[in-house]
This record gives sequence, structure tokens and C-alpha cells, in this order.
Amino acid sequence: MARQSKAEAKEDRLHRMRHSASHIMAEAILSMFPEARFAIGPPIENGFYYDFELPRSLTIDDLAVIEERMRQSIAADRPFEHSQVPKDEARRLFAGQPYKLELIEGIPDETVTLYRQGPFLDLCEGPHVESTGQVKAFKLTSIAGAYWRGDERNPMLQRVYGALFETQEELDDYLHRLEEAQRRDHRRLGRELDLFSFHEEFGPGLVYWHPKGGRVRTIIEDLWRQEHYAGGYELVYSPHIGKSTLWQTSGHLDFYQESMYSPMDVDGQEYFIKPMNCPFHIQMYRSSTRSYRDLPMRLAELGTVYRYERSGVLHGLMRVRGFTQDDAHIFCRPDQVEDEILRCVDFALFFLRTFGFQDFEVYLSTRPEKYVGTVEDWDMAEGALRRAIEAAKLPYEVDEGGGVFYGPKIDIKIKDVLGRDWQCTTIQFDFNLPERFDLAFVGDDGRERRPYMVHRALLGSMERFLGVLIEHYGGAFPLWLAPVQATVIPIADRHVEYARRVAEDLRAEGLRVEVDERGERMQAKIRDAQLQKVPYMLVVGDKEMEAEAAALRCRSGEDLGLMPLFQVIDRLKDEVANRG
Amino acid sequence: MARQSKAEAKEDRLHRMRHSASHIMAEAILSMFPEARFAIGPPIENGFYYDFELPRSLTIDDLAVIEERMRQSIAADRPFEHSQVPKDEARRLFAGQPYKLELIEGIPDETVTLYRQGPFLDLCEGPHVESTGQVKAFKLTSIAGAYWRGDERNPMLQRVYGALFETQEELDDYLHRLEEAQRRDHRRLGRELDLFSFHEEFGPGLVYWHPKGGRVRTIIEDLWRQEHYAGGYELVYSPHIGKSTLWQTSGHLDFYQESMYSPMDVDGQEYFIKPMNCPFHIQMYRSSTRSYRDLPMRLAELGTVYRYERSGVLHGLMRVRGFTQDDAHIFCRPDQVEDEILRCVDFALFFLRTFGFQDFEVYLSTRPEKYVGTVEDWDMAEGALRRAIEAAKLPYEVDEGGGVFYGPKIDIKIKDVLGRDWQCTTIQFDFNLPERFDLAFVGDDGRERRPYMVHRALLGSMERFLGVLIEHYGGAFPLWLAPVQATVIPIADRHVEYARRVAEDLRAEGLRVEVDERGERMQAKIRDAQLQKVPYMLVVGDKEMEAEAAALRCRSGEDLGLMPLFQVIDRLKDEVANRG
Repeated sequence: MARQSKAEAKEDRLHRMRHSASHIMAEAILSMFPEARFAIGPPIENGFYYDFELPRSLTIDDLAVIEERMRQSIAADRPFEHSQVPKDEARRLFAGQPYKLELIEGIPDETVTLYRQGPFLDLCEGPHVESTGQVKAFKLTSIAGAYWRGDERNPMLQRVYGALFETQEELDDYLHRLEEAQRRDHRRLGRELDLFSFHEEFGPGLVYWHPKGGRVRTIIEDLWRQEHYAGGYELVYSPHIGKSTLWQTSGHLDFYQESMYSPMDVDGQEYFIKPMNCPFHIQMYRSSTRSYRDLPMRLAELGTVYRYERSGVLHGLMRVRGFTQDDAHIFCRPDQVEDEILRCVDFALFFLRTFGFQDFEVYLSTRPEKYVGTVEDWDMAEGALRRAIEAAKLPYEVDEGGGVFYGPKIDIKIKDVLGRDWQCTTIQFDFNLPERFDLAFVGDDGRERRPYMVHRALLGSMERFLGVLIEHYGGAFPLWLAPVQATVIPIADRHVEYARRVAEDLRAEGLRVEVDERGERMQAKIRDAQLQKVPYMLVVGDKEMEAEAAALRCRSGEDLGLMPLFQVIDRLKDEVANRG
Repeated sequence: MARQSKAEAKEDRLHRMRHSASHIMAEAILSMFPEARFAIGPPIENGFYYDFELPRSLTIDDLAVIEERMRQSIAADRPFEHSQVPKDEARRLFAGQPYKLELIEGIPDETVTLYRQGPFLDLCEGPHVESTGQVKAFKLTSIAGAYWRGDERNPMLQRVYGALFETQEELDDYLHRLEEAQRRDHRRLGRELDLFSFHEEFGPGLVYWHPKGGRVRTIIEDLWRQEHYAGGYELVYSPHIGKSTLWQTSGHLDFYQESMYSPMDVDGQEYFIKPMNCPFHIQMYRSSTRSYRDLPMRLAELGTVYRYERSGVLHGLMRVRGFTQDDAHIFCRPDQVEDEILRCVDFALFFLRTFGFQDFEVYLSTRPEKYVGTVEDWDMAEGALRRAIEAAKLPYEVDEGGGVFYGPKIDIKIKDVLGRDWQCTTIQFDFNLPERFDLAFVGDDGRERRPYMVHRALLGSMERFLGVLIEHYGGAFPLWLAPVQATVIPIADRHVEYARRVAEDLRAEGLRVEVDERGERMQAKIRDAQLQKVPYMLVVGDKEMEAEAAALRCRSGEDLGLMPLFQVIDRLKDEVANRG
């Protein structure tokens, strides 16, 4: 057995501490609420949580009380005692704890393991630290609702989250990043900047794109369409529903149905709303006989798909039930595969860099134990993927055997300004659907052959990508993406007319400009524009009117002084053109 | 009673003749197939049809035989004899005719009316001409399948269509137009030009937009988005599904359910795929408190909706089950209504004229007997609609009392090159949804008021509008809309490289160009490009290479001679810019 590395040893210590801290928190809760019912309390990245059913809702003020009691337990340095008991004995011990009883029923063995520290006994496999005194720097961070087993048909429990690190410095650093992430939370900014909304009562996980979010999306989609045409793609549009026969042929009803919505009945036939666009693009490919001259055929669509996610796991724009993939399917000859994959990777990096991302993590997933297609196909495809990553000079990790059964793939994750990873691009071979739909092209020798098929999405989905952009920019979109690029602020009523003319002049140059005509003071208007993260403010008063100019301010607060209008226009247009 | 006008008298004569001709056709069928079962045979615009159940399928050759027998009946000048009999008697007379028996059961009266000419007796209310000899110029035009009562669960019958006019000249003129319409049939052209497809087996009435159709759509949608932004609209995106609560509140489940698909089950709740976008836009309006300053709010969306249509009535792109409306909802103050309606009408005419339509028919539908809202609201709205039509100097007809219960509307129909009407624009007031969703804005006096709401679609739907454009242009899209604008045709292999360079030069100027590198002869390539209705062909050989030029040809066959490349580019770019 290889010796544990230093990093692994630290990870192991943290894991035990975090797990033990969740038990210590449960101990504190038990002392406050003897009637509490306990669900589960695992260690997680950066800390731990525990789910409780309590006689009342916890408040933020409770967290300090719980923390204090936890510190008392830590000061008492109680040992964690491990034991193993028959299931019947466990059922007696947890008689008043329905969640624990349910967990016991799910354990296949005849005995179960328990951990006790002081008064608190838990059904638990460990591992833990030796005693409560070994738990280091921690802080309780938040309370959230969580359904038992993540299923919204089950009771809603209260989940308390804590952060835990080995040193106070590491904890402080983490809490600072957490605070920054909360400040940038796309759900909060989405509301404050009026970008989008959800309407739980009419269906959770379904995004309503408001005018300002819609404007950002339109800019992204316009760029996407334009670049796809320039890149030799063809844009198609496919229906959102298809008869069960389509999903039977594609195999989705066999291996993907749990992610699909239940069927609709039309004329006695079952129709499904699409979770994927591929079967439709395949029908287009199949609508004519294809020759080797017609390939590669690159069919792209901003296709909106619907997938079932348990409502407990929905999260703002990041995890939704309906989303628009920037999807494409490439049908090509064997001799074209390598070049096509290279183009996909380059194209993905072009887009991601355009939005200001510079750090990428690439994962190559290779042939699993169960697979379709030939070993030669897989080797060829994996080689093409690998060489494309290397040609782009990107570091990558190989997930050996981690591919899905129908083909190898690469995933590209971006790092945002807080260093968080976000999965965007996927480039995925498919050796399954061409077989199932019997795809063919006529080779230069007149014989029928099977084309290769590659699925790819570059940004992932419009919804998720907007979420990432909001958090990455903290809502302060660069000028070219900002829904409102400038606000003209007249100082007094007598400047309103000039302000409108300034706005018209800028609009005539294709800029997105508003005039703040409210009867508020100038400083209030500047502050509101800054809160709305409008990149530029053009303050206009007597002096500016006379000089055909504006006092230009940035949302950062920087004052750029009096600037002639034509110069303001040039500056803004340049910045838009450079996507700076 | 007013005297019948000359036109009305002619219409009445034609109606009788066409109806009688359908009976004469049935007489001919009876003589050919004594076991024939007869369904219905009404007069229609331009002619008549009859639906039969026959022991074998008719062919086009049968039509001449049927026509010949019809002429014999006409030559015999048999009188049409009218009678009235009790239902029981009728049941005996039509004992072997199940469709007639079913019709008899549907008649509320105790007696039914019959018409007989010679051997053929029919259940019929008339009116007819006096005798078969009065039937004038006719021709049987086609055979089609038709479900009994238009319901695909019923048996499929054979329908024979005929055209009938008072003079041979009128008939010839009509047949010529019919032939032209068939030549322009968007379903045939859609296939030949590879614009779109349907896949019955995976769901009828669902459009798959192929790359070339997708290109046309993208051009239209780009223009639409651009003009909507310039016109003060804001673009939004809404989900395709919503929980039943949404459709209950909107009232669609009460008064529109037969056009909606059956529900999907999600987490034990019913979800419906949207037949309309309005409830979603209303949620966006309601997501904030609105002030009088925020209005008008114009929310626009290219929103894809799904409506149930019986499969028997589906017709190419003209009548489908899923379509993308160029939808918008305008929320405004009472003092803004008039201006908003005027803008809608102007905007509609701008779009329709851009696509080459010049003749419009406008219909104003006014307050029906049952309505929501106040008489004052209706009067105001009807007045605004009327003044907008008059300001646009358009002739219009008023359909008194023909409005839907929730508000008056105007419809604009366009006339295509064959003089056929196509419904495109609808501008529809809604006094219902603002009440149901309790919409409000805060007036300048601080009091809450109800905004006015107007639904509008200008082109109607992308699917239907493409169908109309294909038929209007006969597939020969003007340059700015053509999916492929020019084909470069190298005369010999040694010109291929130059041809590619020419294509690149044109593409660099934003033109859509293909190179025909096949080993075919030049004439064959020119013919193929013409069949594909590509606006320009650039033929390049030695002479053209040397002169940095191309021999330019139009799809009409016109030869524009040798033209330097820069001049070709200027010419094409000008034509695109002018949307000529």
C-alpha cells in the first residue's frame, strides 16, 4: 500500500474533523431541543451540515447559541466511542427517531455501527477524530430548508451548514470568499438588476427572461449565430415535442426516461417534450441521401430542452428544468474527425475567452467497461480528442474508463474570478445513435458507409452561462454585454431636453442608452445607476450643454471629466468593438 | 327585402350549379360503382367535391371517365326533383348507405328533404338548378383522401374535386391559376429546395427547419429583432411549459382547452405545453410594481407555441401543430392606446411591405353580444383601431359584433401574386387578462390603475409566413432572403481554385456563396442552380480568371456578361441592402 501523501493526510484529517463537528452540532441541538429528530449529518467540501426536524424554525441568532454549546463540548474534550450492535438493538435505541429508523432499514447488514460522544448517539460509519477537543476552526454559516432524501414529497427539514478548517486563517480566507460569492450570487443580482425571475407557483426551475436578461441573451445569441455561420455551421430549428416512436428509436426511453417529463397524449399516442435535440438533427441528416461531398455537415441549434430534476436540487439558473443548449451535431467522414475536433476545441476557447475567461480545466473521459462501437473507433476518437487538447496547449486530466457507453468526450471547465470551476463545453463522440438510426453516406467508391457523429455544446446552456457570467462579473457586465450601456443624467429640468438629444445621438450609433428624468437629485441618480451597474453615466448641465459635451463617469466611481459628445461616442464604440 | 345585386345573383347561380354538379358526379360514380357509399358533396369556392367510399382507389384516368358520364347526364337534361319524407322513410331509402344514415340521425326535424336526378337520390337541402342541363363549364381537378367528418379516427374516404364556372373562359382562367398555385406549392418547393421537412411517424404537423429554411428564418428573425429593438420593444424569453395553476388563472383551461395538448405529470402536478405566450409575459409585467413612467411596456418574443389541430386539417406550413409566433404584448396607459395602435399598424405594414406585399385587406371586429369590460372601453378601443387603419389609408371591412369576448381586434390580410389572401397581422385588445391577473400600475396621482393590454403578431407565425413567402415568390427568394445567393461555376478543373477564391472574396463581403465543384458540364451546373432558384451564377473560365472577373447570369436565364469581381460584389451588395 502506497504511503499517504501530505495533501491526502490533510484531507483525511479535515474529513474526520468536519464529520465530528456535525455530530457536535447535533449534540448542541439535542441539548436545546430534546424532541429534535435527526436526519443525516455528513462532512462536505469546506465544512459540514446536519438536517434536523425541530419544533420551531431556527434563526440566524440561534447559530451563535449553537456555536457556543459546540465550543463547550469541544472544551470538554469528550471521546468519540464506536460500537456495533444488531439491528434490533439499534431500532430500540432510535425508537423516537423516524429518519434514523428509515436509514436502519436501508442497511443491508445484520448489524449497524454507532458513534457516541457524551449524550449524543448517532447511527454512523465514521470515521471521526478521537475526541471533540481535536475539532479546530469552525463557524456555522447558514440555515436552509432541505427535503428528507432530497425528495420534495418528503417533509422539509432544517439544514444548518458550518465551515471548518485546520487554522483560523484558512477559515477566515474561506469565509471571505464565501461572502464575496454571496455578494455575487446570481439569484440576488438577477433580482436586483431585473434580469430574470422564477415563478414557483407556476412551475419551479423554469426561467422567465426579463427584458434586461433577454438583452444579454440576444447579444450572446447574435454573436453565437454569426460565428457559427462564419465557422461553417448551418442553423436549424426543431420541434420541442416528438412521438414516443422517436424516443424509442433513439433509445432515450430505455436509458434516459427518468430525466424526461411524463408523456402527453395526442390522438391516443404518447408524445414527449424533448430532453435533447439530437434525434431531430438526425432526422434532418436522414432526409436526403448524403454523399462524401456533403460532409462534414454541422447542424447547430439554440435548442430549448426540458429535463426532470427533483425540485430539491434546483438552484437559480445553475440547475433548472428547462434550458437552451447551444447545441450542434457534426456528421463527418473518418478522415475529417481529427480536424473537426480541433475546430470544436478552438471554437470553444474563442467563445470562452471572448467572455473574459482565461483559465480552463480539461477532462478527457475514455472507454468504460461497457461500451458500444469498436475498440478501433474508441482509440481513434480518444486520440483525436487528446491531440486537439494538446494542440490547444491546455493542461488536462484523463478520467480512464469514465466515458459514457456511447463514446469518449472532453469537458472544458472555466475558472471564474473567485477560482470556482464551471462546466461549460462538452465535445462528445457518439457511436450509438448512428447505428440506431442507421446513418449512412455514399463514399467516393459508391459504397455506403457510416458517418461519425459528434455532439457538442460550447457555452453549455444559455441559462447556466448567464448565471456564470453574472457571478463572474459580479453583475457588472462589460460594455458590449451590458443591457444598458449608459445613463444620461440631467442635472436640472432645463437639461432634460439636451439629455434626450444626447441619448438619441448615442442610440443612433447603436448604443443602449437611458435618460434618468426622475425628479431626484443628481447624486441619487448617479448612485442608482451605479447600483444598476450601468457602465457609464453622462451627467449634463449648463456647461455640458454649451460645449456639446457630457461629464463622463464610470460605474467604478471614476470621474473622466468633461468630454465632447463625439469623443464619448468614439470611446464607447471602441470599447464595444473590442469587447473590452 | 333588398333586391339581389348582380354579383349576388351570379354567386347564387354558381352555388346552385356547383352543388348540382356534385350530385351529377355522384350519379356518374353510382353508375360505375353500384356498391359505392356516399358521404357528403357540397359546393365550395370555385367548384365542388363529393366524398365516396369505393371498392377501389380512383386514379387520375378515372376522372376523364367520370367527366364523360357527367356530360351524358347533362346532355339528358334530367330535372332535379325535390321531396320531403319522414325520417323512417328516409332510413329505408338509404338502408345501404351508413354515412347517410348517420347524417339522418343528426337532423333534429321529423322529416328530411331529398333531391333526385334520374337514378341518383340524395339526402340534401338544396338548392339546385332546375335540371342537369343548366350546369355549365366544369372540370374534375383532383382526388384526395378525406376522413369522414374530418376525424382521423373515422374511415378514410376518397374525395373528388371539381372546378365549375359559368363560362369556359372563366374556368380556363381558374385552372391556369390553380396550375400556377400547384407549381408554387410550398410543400413541393420546400422539398425541392430542401427548406424543411415533416416526419409523420414522429408526430404530424411538427416542422423540421433544414439549413436552407433555417437560413431564411434566421434572416427574418434577425431583422425582426433589430427592428423591434429600434421600435422600443424589449425582447423576452419564456418557458414552453407551465403548471395548470397558470392556465387556470389565465382562463385557458376554461375556454381554450380543446386546442391545448393533454397535460404532463410533474411531481404529481399537471403541466401544459403553452398554446400562447401571454400568461408568461403577464408574469414578467407583474414581477415589479409598475409606475405610469414605466409604460408603455412592450414585451416581444419569438415564442414557440403548440396547439392541437386534428391531423385531418394539417396542411404543410400553413396549418401545423407547433409554430413560432412573432408575438408581443403591449401594456399601456389609456392616454397611450391610440398612439400604440397606430405604431402597431405602421410596424406591421413596414414588415409586410419589406417582404414585397403591397395589397392589404383589413378587418375590424367589434363588440359581440357577450363581452367583458365596459362599453366605454370597447368604444375607445374600436375607435383607436379604426383611426389607425384610416391613418394608414387602408380600405377595411367591419365585422360588426364579430370580435371575441375579451376585446376588439384588427386583422390584416396580404394578397400574394396569385391574388390569394393570407392572414398575417392581428392586433387584439384584451380586457380580460388584466382583470384575471389583477394587473396594475401606479398613476401620477399615486393611485393604482389598470393598464390596457394589447396582443399583437405582425407576420403571424414563422412557419406560416415562410409558407406564404415560398408561394408568393414561387421559391425564388429575393437576393436578401435567398439561402444561397450565388453559385460559382468553374468551367473546367483548372478553374476550381479561382472559383474558390471568388467565393471567398464574396463571402468576405457577407454574401452566401457556394462553389459547384462537381465533375458535371457547365450547362448542367447552370441548370441545377436555376432549379435551386439561386439568384446569381458566376461562371468562371480562362477569360474570367485573367480579367479577375466572372460571367454573371441570373436565375431567370438572363446573361449579364463578363463583369469584374468588384463590380459583381457591388451589384449584389446593393441589391441586398435595398432588399430589392
